[in-house]
Amino acid sequence: MSRHFNFSAGPAALPEEVLKTAQQEMLDWHGCGLSIMEMSHRSDEFMSVAAQAEQDLRDLMHIPDNYKVLFLQGGATSQFAMVPLNLLRGKTTADYINTGVWSKKAIAEAKRYCDVNVVATTESTQFTSAPTQDELVLNPDAAYVHYTPNETIGGVEFDYIPDTGDVPLVADMSSNILSRPFDVSKFGLIYAGAQKNIGPAGLTVVIVREDLLGDTLAGTPTMYDYAVHAAAGSMNNTPPTLAWYLTGLVFKWLKAQGGVEAMEVANRRKAEKLYQAIADSKFFSNPVVKRNQSWMNVPFILADSNLDSTFIAESEKAGLLNLQGHRSVGGMRASIYNAVNEQAVDALIAFMNEFERTHG
Amino acid sequence: MSRHFNFSAGPAALPEEVLKTAQQEMLDWHGCGLSIMEMSHRSDEFMSVAAQAEQDLRDLMHIPDNYKVLFLQGGATSQFAMVPLNLLRGKTTADYINTGVWSKKAIAEAKRYCDVNVVATTESTQFTSAPTQDELVLNPDAAYVHYTPNETIGGVEFDYIPDTGDVPLVADMSSNILSRPFDVSKFGLIYAGAQKNIGPAGLTVVIVREDLLGDTLAGTPTMYDYAVHAAAGSMNNTPPTLAWYLTGLVFKWLKAQGGVEAMEVANRRKAEKLYQAIADSKFFSNPVVKRNQSWMNVPFILADSNLDSTFIAESEKAGLLNLQGHRSVGGMRASIYNAVNEQAVDALIAFMNEFERTHG
Repeated sequence: MSRHFNFSAGPAALPEEVLKTAQQEMLDWHGCGLSIMEMSHRSDEFMSVAAQAEQDLRDLMHIPDNYKVLFLQGGATSQFAMVPLNLLRGKTTADYINTGVWSKKAIAEAKRYCDVNVVATTESTQFTSAPTQDELVLNPDAAYVHYTPNETIGGVEFDYIPDTGDVPLVADMSSNILSRPFDVSKFGLIYAGAQKNIGPAGLTVVIVREDLLGDTLAGTPTMYDYAVHAAAGSMNNTPPTLAWYLTGLVFKWLKAQGGVEAMEVANRRKAEKLYQAIADSKFFSNPVVKRNQSWMNVPFILADSNLDSTFIAESEKAGLLNLQGHRSVGGMRASIYNAVNEQAVDALIAFMNEFERTHG
Repeated sequence: MSRHFNFSAGPAALPEEVLKTAQQEMLDWHGCGLSIMEMSHRSDEFMSVAAQAEQDLRDLMHIPDNYKVLFLQGGATSQFAMVPLNLLRGKTTADYINTGVWSKKAIAEAKRYCDVNVVATTESTQFTSAPTQDELVLNPDAAYVHYTPNETIGGVEFDYIPDTGDVPLVADMSSNILSRPFDVSKFGLIYAGAQKNIGPAGLTVVIVREDLLGDTLAGTPTMYDYAVHAAAGSMNNTPPTLAWYLTGLVFKWLKAQGGVEAMEVANRRKAEKLYQAIADSKFFSNPVVKRNQSWMNVPFILADSNLDSTFIAESEKAGLLNLQGHRSVGGMRASIYNAVNEQAVDALIAFMNEFERTHG
């Protein structure tokens, strides 16, 4: 067995300690004589795993008591519909900030349920930045304001939390949740697919302010109603127990590392190193304005795109996996989530330097 | 490590061989240097796992080419809405057969989208049987006919596939899929939550005839549109890759056992043994009419319900887990899915006989 450095954008690297624990407990969870995935979600054993995972996330993110934490299925893509279905609450318009591929997907789905007011877009500059607070022309009558704090494909991250006054702020935090502290009280709702910084694919975490629940659009499927899940402790039906358990192990690991505060220090250092190496290079480049360079997803291109396939082939040989950029944009992308340690980033930088020396 | 006999109704027992393979491959899938759950769903490696799982299911169930196989999230409970949203296709009424708790849940959700015509119900006899074909008063103009071939809580299983003429037949096969051969060509749509006979919770399998796709009710969320998933090979967004992989291992295991044809032989033998033991007993009883006694879920009650907690405590001590009945009905229930082998059933019967001898 040999573990490689994994820069996958998602499903992404998980902490090796988490995988080892899951491996050890696979056939017999804590002496119960069965796997965690073979027991009822309503058993005392699983209920304690579920509750502990929620409490650990509350501790890690300092989630206020007036927020519900939901463990759902369907990915962020399901949230693109669930957000308007639940948060319009009689209103007919919502504000959206457009900073790239994932913003656009959220906007397209919301348009099926309400008038979408795009309050700022950086499309004219190929999504190489996020708008500043001053550039947001917000509608005080909007049901909510939606944005994507970190665009996984473009590698564009907001360097601030938008101030939306009394209008609830909604964030697709799929690719930067838990990467650093965020003041949850500034949000009406946060959602995140698990498969980047939380756990395996198949789980979606939703953190929502209680007062926003309970007024869905007519025709909303029961399983798309946050209030139903909140009332049932995310067990209106059988939840994805294995994914929930693994997510709990990741939260425990995060706590042991020193929480999101420690992640902030590590992630800042990892990102700064890698962006500095790119800035110092005459061969690699990243198009994003400095203040919005993502800590989690670092896209970069080679001066000669004919060398892309060579770069991929040689990086794989060197044990650096999944560096190809998203199929929609090409180039390269290194995703350096919490579970990708500094050693991996150092190895990548060394490889890039050597590649530039020999092919540049 | 000591594995016990696990009679959980779901999430339920998985084949030990499957868990062992997953354990072995947990940190390094096939020498790739990362876990299967850490790689992109669009990687060649995962795509091959996904395609193989679909092919194995097609082989096992002899699924005709004009049916799509979808690997979704959200459980059968999400299907309760997805079925009417996709299959009404301009019609306003659907036929439902009511045989218990799960039928009623499906009916309640469908009523939010159409007129539900309950074409037969066994509620007046406390759901201790399924209606016969003669008792079904079908509406030839219904959009579809929905039924629950096996009621997990009541332990009532249909002994035939309803003939619905040209009206598509829809089945919630969550608790008896793969337990024996079913002629898929008789169905318009089959759905099943994975956590009983397929794999871990968090995956839902849908088998749907192609001509029924593509005409959803206005306002249907994109992720509730079967056609979207069919067109994207169930990868419209990130699928639950770990659950899909584990499910593939279960399908491989099933093939190695001799497929659903071999399961039919084994499951018939297991069920007949257990029902015979109950029939022979003066202490245990099962209320279901013989022709509808479920092969998968065997509920039984003790002559003296004061002994219920003693039965549970002593069975657990004997390594027989999760025999308590559903919280809504009480009593006992032994779920004997494919992964629960005959040895487990023998051990249960021996324990029941001994319990009757000492407490009866």
